[in-house]
Formats: sequence, structure tokens, C-alpha cells
Amino acid sequence: MARSTPPRQARRPLRSPCPLGGALDLLGDRWTLLVIRDLLFFDKHRFAEFLASPEGISTNILAERLERLEQCGLVERRRYLERPMREEYTLTARGQDLRPVLRELIRWGKRHVPGVAQRPPAGATVE
Amino acid sequence: MARSTPPRQARRPLRSPCPLGGALDLLGDRWTLLVIRDLLFFDKHRFAEFLASPEGISTNILAERLERLEQCGLVERRRYLERPMREEYTLTARGQDLRPVLRELIRWGKRHVPGVAQRPPAGATVE
Repeated sequence: MARSTPPRQARRPLRSPCPLGGALDLLGDRWTLLVIRDLLFFDKHRFAEFLASPEGISTNILAERLERLEQCGLVERRRYLERPMREEYTLTARGQDLRPVLRELIRWGKRHVPGVAQRPPAGATVE
Repeated sequence: MARSTPPRQARRPLRSPCPLGGALDLLGDRWTLLVIRDLLFFDKHRFAEFLASPEGISTNILAERLERLEQCGLVERRRYLERPMREEYTLTARGQDLRPVLRELIRWGKRHVPGVAQRPPAGATVE
């Protein structure tokens, strides 16, 4: 399906004027920030790469999240091959600006969630 | 219902060793961090106070989230009146340590979610 319109900010009704509420409207679930993590820290860009992450996201949830992230202007989708059709995803500046959020969540998780890894796995580009 | 056991860390199977995944297992939804916000920045401590927040959380979701936060050691519940029975919730150190996470999500929301407030409302104690 060809797309002629560029990604743009999806306008949804806000639950409240609170910027935290607004952020959670987009990001508040168990999966979205893991996809952002893969883009930011693991240099993943393709559907199958996100799918292969250890949390085991399902194809339908992943497709829905990527669609939403694109609509909200956090990721851009680019077709890099026509036959067979291949696409890849990259973070926009708005998506990259989530780095401090992820950093603080990772710091909190390391301190307070028993059993998680204290060091990034091989291949991660977390500073 | 009397509770004799203190709050303790609920052990759930982790989806992966990733500390971000572990944090999102507890916090990754649209409501949990709003309750933490109310405790951290709005000096709210009672069920009815959380319920009155502008996002309009439902009683069953609020009860479930408070229970989970207590089980995971992020909030403590204290009975401050026996008849009629009245309880209040306070953040533990583990819960208070979410302040930098909230700060970064608020910063991101202000920058990137159209229409949200740029200043804290009256009564907030956000620095």
C-alpha cells in the first residue's frame, strides 16, 4: 500500500492537560518503549529485528505500535527495496529525545527490579 | 481485612533480563505513573484523592494499581482511622526513586505532545 502523506502528529483527545498524561497516552504500555530501546540502543531498524528481541513481542502488537509511532512522528518508515518490498524504521528527533526517559527507567529497573541484568548485553550501544 | 504481612517485592517472571523490560512490567501502562505523580507532586494520599485527578481513573483500575504498587514495595498502606476505617498511601524509597523518570517523561511531554500545559497547576510541588 503506497503512502503519499508524510508522517504527522496524530491528534487524539488528551485525558488532561498534564504533560505526563500526554506522554503516557503515547508511551504508556509494556511494549512501546522496548521498540524505542531497540532503535536507540541496539541499532535495529527492521520488523523482523524487533520481533527477534528477547521479550517476544507478537507480530500484531509490533505492527500496531510501529504504526502508532509513525503516526505520532516518533519513527519514520522508509522503503529501501521495492522487490521484494522491504522497509526500515528510524527514530525522528522526537523519538530520539526519549533517550533520557529510557536512561532513567533503566537506572530505576537496575536498582529496584530483582533479577535484571546490571550491564548492557553485547551489541548494545548504551553509554 | 487485616494484613499481618508487610509489603514485599512481588516476584513475577521477567520477560527478559533487560532492566527496561523489568521496569515496564511494573510501570508500563497508562495509569500507574499518574498515581505515582499524585503521590510525588500533589501530596495526595487517599483513594478518593487519586480518584479525583483529572484523568478520571476508574475505581477498579485504581484499586488494582494501588494493590500492585503495594505488593511491589513502591507504596505503603497505612490505616489511620479504625472506625470508620480509613487508609492512606505513601511512597516508599523505591517509589520516590521514580522522580527522575517522571521528570524526564514530563519534560518530553511538554516538548512533544501538542496541547499539554507548560507549567505545573496550582498545588503542585514540582520543582
